[in-house]
Amino acid sequence: MAETPIRGFGEGEYRARTARAQSKMAAQGIAGLLLMTEPDVRYFSGFQTPFWQSPTRPWFLFVPVSGKPVAVIPEIGAVLMRTTWIEDIRTWNAPNPADDGISLLRDLLAPIAAQKGSIAMMMGHETSLRMPLAEYDRLRAALPGLRVKDATALVQGARMVKSEAEIDKIRHICCIASRCFDRVPELVSAGQPFEEVFRAFRREALAQGADDVPYLVGGAEQGGYRDVISPPSRRPMQIGDVFMLDTGMTWDGYFCDFDRNYGVGRVDDATQRAYETLWHATEAGLAAIRPGASCRDVYSAMQAVLARGKEQGAAVGRFGHGLGMQLTEVPSIAAFDETVLQENMVLTLEPSLAYGEHRLMVHEENIVVRASGAEALSVRAPEWLPLIGGTR
Amino acid sequence: MAETPIRGFGEGEYRARTARAQSKMAAQGIAGLLLMTEPDVRYFSGFQTPFWQSPTRPWFLFVPVSGKPVAVIPEIGAVLMRTTWIEDIRTWNAPNPADDGISLLRDLLAPIAAQKGSIAMMMGHETSLRMPLAEYDRLRAALPGLRVKDATALVQGARMVKSEAEIDKIRHICCIASRCFDRVPELVSAGQPFEEVFRAFRREALAQGADDVPYLVGGAEQGGYRDVISPPSRRPMQIGDVFMLDTGMTWDGYFCDFDRNYGVGRVDDATQRAYETLWHATEAGLAAIRPGASCRDVYSAMQAVLARGKEQGAAVGRFGHGLGMQLTEVPSIAAFDETVLQENMVLTLEPSLAYGEHRLMVHEENIVVRASGAEALSVRAPEWLPLIGGTR
Repeated sequence: MAETPIRGFGEGEYRARTARAQSKMAAQGIAGLLLMTEPDVRYFSGFQTPFWQSPTRPWFLFVPVSGKPVAVIPEIGAVLMRTTWIEDIRTWNAPNPADDGISLLRDLLAPIAAQKGSIAMMMGHETSLRMPLAEYDRLRAALPGLRVKDATALVQGARMVKSEAEIDKIRHICCIASRCFDRVPELVSAGQPFEEVFRAFRREALAQGADDVPYLVGGAEQGGYRDVISPPSRRPMQIGDVFMLDTGMTWDGYFCDFDRNYGVGRVDDATQRAYETLWHATEAGLAAIRPGASCRDVYSAMQAVLARGKEQGAAVGRFGHGLGMQLTEVPSIAAFDETVLQENMVLTLEPSLAYGEHRLMVHEENIVVRASGAEALSVRAPEWLPLIGGTR
Repeated sequence: MAETPIRGFGEGEYRARTARAQSKMAAQGIAGLLLMTEPDVRYFSGFQTPFWQSPTRPWFLFVPVSGKPVAVIPEIGAVLMRTTWIEDIRTWNAPNPADDGISLLRDLLAPIAAQKGSIAMMMGHETSLRMPLAEYDRLRAALPGLRVKDATALVQGARMVKSEAEIDKIRHICCIASRCFDRVPELVSAGQPFEEVFRAFRREALAQGADDVPYLVGGAEQGGYRDVISPPSRRPMQIGDVFMLDTGMTWDGYFCDFDRNYGVGRVDDATQRAYETLWHATEAGLAAIRPGASCRDVYSAMQAVLARGKEQGAAVGRFGHGLGMQLTEVPSIAAFDETVLQENMVLTLEPSLAYGEHRLMVHEENIVVRASGAEALSVRAPEWLPLIGGTR
């Protein structure tokens, strides 16, 4: 087993991330990035806390075109922010419905607005505005000269390519998840409510060293599952069930995201065929991974295998995605995404298949793009659907 | 021990929630609510999935002024949404960067826009816009006649007062957390890295019946902790440490949120005094809870106890908050919040104290407002700081 990586990053990681963004900002005439979601703030600052679970307070990080980022945050976060590389930390006593950071932001941005300069914010695909819309409108009104551009491509493009230190963290949590999936036959038995399978799997993840299991979904039904995003039911596992567990566990703020399929006692031929088709589709996807190939190429390689069996992908929208500080990141492994693969992108390959009457199957693996092709982060799923004992 | 409540709600719960909102919408001239965050969509539909962890796809629920809500969601969620009481489910094959639900929303809202009618969205304090800002602007541009009002007070006001079925779920997860805190002396010993304390606590929570532990923070330092939102360090627990665990566990989509403090082996007098002061401040807060009192009244009752000892509240911004489908909800137990308490509001009381050199302590309890006053949901913290054995 590989050693546990070191938590956190050296300051050089944050300097490099910031410098890369700043060189693009300079080229695009952007005076700074105004960021406000957990991963974007953490990416440039190292500020890591589960406190984002509380929707009450907004948090802001401003990355100027030169110099260190500036934190504009609730006072409750000051002690933790001072442990990062950030020096300019401006706080207010939040929550304050009358002024939750808006006057601090206005003061910070006023010099840029006075020169009719531009900042950029995340406003494109896969983003959201993590502050009240009315407060955003108020900030804009207070700074009539300010131009606001779209930072989506710049920030997503930077985050898409991982450092070796980031890859080490993702590999570590993928190893933990692979060990948990190996133990599923010991954790599961017929008669056990599916809800208890989830609970046992989460406990195993913690025992194996995961920090948390923010994402766990799955399906378990006779002859094949119909849904892949449900929380578990209390229905007991039965002989003839096909079940799938799909997990996003975290270690030091980085995710794995892959699933495994199992049969209880026995499965029918259609299910075995679906499994084999998806396994070979994944093989084709893995073989298509190389720097210079596009996401569409990888998608097409998997789709071609499904098409040979006259099968169709399920309506999940794509066959994989980026992975890192979030469960799902850009790019999409989809016909619509022409993103060109680069070394050190971390991706999921996730082909899916609709079969039989409303049945569905999904396979998933996690890889990093290397010069030589795909390097596995998850331990590859077996070629044949594993059957687990009906009783124990 | 009370029995485990039933999962989910009867359709009557959703009918009642919708009818209450609709009567306010009618009074305010609002043709419908456009909702897009996990708790708001779940509150009116019953749609519950961890899939919201993925930021890729937007999800929408439209609550018209009469009739059932309409779901406008990615196709991947259709099977699960069909298990709820929602009938009108409109889907698209997401992700689709060219049109992620925008044309479906435009078609849904066009008749209202044609009459220069109003919808309402969440845009006030403690809200965010969970769709790309650029897409929102595009939707507004496509519907120039549409007026958009603020739904914050309407929706937060409805969600603030809980049904007995909701209270049962919150009580259940509070009981689970109380049992976990009782077991902390068995789970923790000197020499154990604080990170392992967290892992043991999470595993205990799952063993006791929690679905998940989305929130766990704490501090552990010699003589008193300095921060209350940090993830755990690898520092081993030592004799003389004061530590605090603060957890938001979930059961069937409802949260508890409270903490407990412990000393390892021994603590100094200043820490004991801080603990006693906060315990009495909490008592004063509990005594001030009654329908008709304001949040400010409850805050003032706690602040008065701190002021007697010439102590000051720590810079965490408030002394408690609402609790339910989210870790923190409105109202705030704060000087700025004049919300009047009503029966069946669920609240946290969370006084905090700065003491010594940069030390900090927080206490927290969860209660429901009843006609007769505060009914405890968490098992009340002991009056004296519990010391756990230094070795085992």
